[in-house]
Amino acid sequence: MTRVAIIGAAQTAFGVKPDATLKALFAAAVEAALDDIAKGLDPQEIEEAYIGSLVTGGSQLGNFGPLMAESAGLTGAAAQRVENACASSGFAFRDAVMAVASGRARLVLAGGIEKMSDLPRTRNRSWLGVSGDVEWERLAGTNFPGIYAMMARRHMHEHGTGRDQIAGVAVKNRGHALANPKAQLRRALSLEDALAAPTLADPLGFSDACGITDGASAVILCRWEDAGAFSDRPVEVVGSGAGSDVVALHDRAGCTRLDAVRRAARQAYAGAGIEPGDIDIAEVHDCFTIAELLAYADLGFCDEAQAGRLIDEGETRLGGRLPVNVSGGLIAKGHPIGATGTGQIVELVQQLRGEAAAPERQVPDARYGLAHNVGGSGGSATVHILKAAA
Amino acid sequence: MTRVAIIGAAQTAFGVKPDATLKALFAAAVEAALDDIAKGLDPQEIEEAYIGSLVTGGSQLGNFGPLMAESAGLTGAAAQRVENACASSGFAFRDAVMAVASGRARLVLAGGIEKMSDLPRTRNRSWLGVSGDVEWERLAGTNFPGIYAMMARRHMHEHGTGRDQIAGVAVKNRGHALANPKAQLRRALSLEDALAAPTLADPLGFSDACGITDGASAVILCRWEDAGAFSDRPVEVVGSGAGSDVVALHDRAGCTRLDAVRRAARQAYAGAGIEPGDIDIAEVHDCFTIAELLAYADLGFCDEAQAGRLIDEGETRLGGRLPVNVSGGLIAKGHPIGATGTGQIVELVQQLRGEAAAPERQVPDARYGLAHNVGGSGGSATVHILKAAA
Repeated sequence: MTRVAIIGAAQTAFGVKPDATLKALFAAAVEAALDDIAKGLDPQEIEEAYIGSLVTGGSQLGNFGPLMAESAGLTGAAAQRVENACASSGFAFRDAVMAVASGRARLVLAGGIEKMSDLPRTRNRSWLGVSGDVEWERLAGTNFPGIYAMMARRHMHEHGTGRDQIAGVAVKNRGHALANPKAQLRRALSLEDALAAPTLADPLGFSDACGITDGASAVILCRWEDAGAFSDRPVEVVGSGAGSDVVALHDRAGCTRLDAVRRAARQAYAGAGIEPGDIDIAEVHDCFTIAELLAYADLGFCDEAQAGRLIDEGETRLGGRLPVNVSGGLIAKGHPIGATGTGQIVELVQQLRGEAAAPERQVPDARYGLAHNVGGSGGSATVHILKAAA
Repeated sequence: MTRVAIIGAAQTAFGVKPDATLKALFAAAVEAALDDIAKGLDPQEIEEAYIGSLVTGGSQLGNFGPLMAESAGLTGAAAQRVENACASSGFAFRDAVMAVASGRARLVLAGGIEKMSDLPRTRNRSWLGVSGDVEWERLAGTNFPGIYAMMARRHMHEHGTGRDQIAGVAVKNRGHALANPKAQLRRALSLEDALAAPTLADPLGFSDACGITDGASAVILCRWEDAGAFSDRPVEVVGSGAGSDVVALHDRAGCTRLDAVRRAARQAYAGAGIEPGDIDIAEVHDCFTIAELLAYADLGFCDEAQAGRLIDEGETRLGGRLPVNVSGGLIAKGHPIGATGTGQIVELVQQLRGEAAAPERQVPDARYGLAHNVGGSGGSATVHILKAAA
């Protein structure tokens, strides 16, 4: 099996950027990813580009991949757009891994972009809802806060998970983001304030959710055997998994687990030849606080009933046994939908190289990092495992 | 290099289908592709599904891949949507080839779907325009008929190509479609009527363009070495190429060639180890008549200046040296955007197996077939070469 390396990775700062065009935003991420390649790379040498985006800023709905590639100077690449809701660039990254592994492409880019602020704010809930099952969920009047609220309520009912444990995810991730210069929401959140936030969809409040974010991210891959020509510290992609599931929540066997994630995780761990206990750092898809608790069990870090305890005991906090979302996660780093999957990879690459932007953010001696990217409420998901160079 | 086989391929009839839902339409194509596998295949064994669509019927903009996979009973697949304008399923097919070639997936589906009739008819020109460069083309007031008309006018100016030669493409393809039960437009067209059709964008008339079409198509792939377990007559994918280009026409070096196609073709021929002269049958992207003439030269069948002559001399007609668009092509079989790329593959598979739906449509002893799928006005393209089993 061909081994795959990451030789460059970068993201724009995440936030609301009314002055940046789609083209400029994506070009900035690609330029930074190229700059991250110590020994240099001519962008024209990149042969394939997989670019994740959900709604392309609402304007360039067709041929979006080629337009973004053009704007970033990737004139030698065959570019395509991948859409898998909030997991768009998780899937784009997986496609890039496949392309390198196939032996049919030497240098490949995976990236993502979303300009959520270009869409009318009052309609954001409506267009975000298009990633649920439109026929059975959106037209029935529910939306993502409502769907994740149902999962949260069920988790509380089945496992005795506390409202404070759910809110604790936001408190942790907001704390992590304070030291991340790329994060959107760098304001500490106390548990008291989290619990006192206005209700979004009971039991979730506004501080349990991510917001409206613009951003782009890009990662450059090649065969492991070629990586030394570009980088002194390549990171290896040792596991890649993906899954999908019925899109509507009511059709699934349960509300407190995502089977698409479990399938993706099994595949990724098997590829890497490791167990959940080997993971040193994880970036997980906390679009809502409850989603991070679901991820703990779906990724094998603990049983479903123990997820809240990981928060209570600080195990997933920076400094804990398994730091999760040291970047701030979707809740605090931000969730520019199409850019999130490869944005998670960027954070892991920096951590596994020992180059976290602020020293206090660095997870010491991290060897294996895991990225978990979920589309919608679990209709699709990817899990990737990266390994630091020895 | 891992060899890749097609073991099943099918499409729905193309046409306007107001009563078919997106889900039912895609499920029908997948069911037919599964039925095409002589020795049977449980749909749950399919591991990856790449599904091309431009506008997803305008409703299910997010997580479209998983929703289509679910509706088709592909419950074991990781599904994703690929959007590359009119080349969406050409790219989806290429992704499927990469996935099999990577050794990381055993059974993979590529497909496509579009329900154009679900979108308001009066706005069709407007939403189709989103595959051009929105900033420089659509907002400047042009659309695809206008862009292809500029290419046609320039081809006439540079190469002396005649209006009758351009219209002759439609006459040929409409004639081919008469015997294709899957084709949308089964009415013969005379050259006189073609030239007398109302002007769409000078010099092109209404019979130079494809119309509004609903449809879906699906193809199932595996490693060549596994193919015998499923089919007695697998078809091999010997060449896969893709390219992209600047999206706006005014930014390109010329108007009478598509460099994305030329790059894709070079890659596909090199992979197959053959020359253009070895091709026995081709399905090319005739969204407008002029596009087929461009394709002749871009694919190496002749020089640019000779493209019109191939029509005059009947070389690309059924019975000629190199039959092109025996299915009827986009103009007459129909162009349900996301379904077109894998729809072309379906036609070639049937021809290379000697199983064309009507005996009079069969190209005798075809060994190599080529599929050419273009996104927008050439912002992206794929070229695939298939080979009949010995």
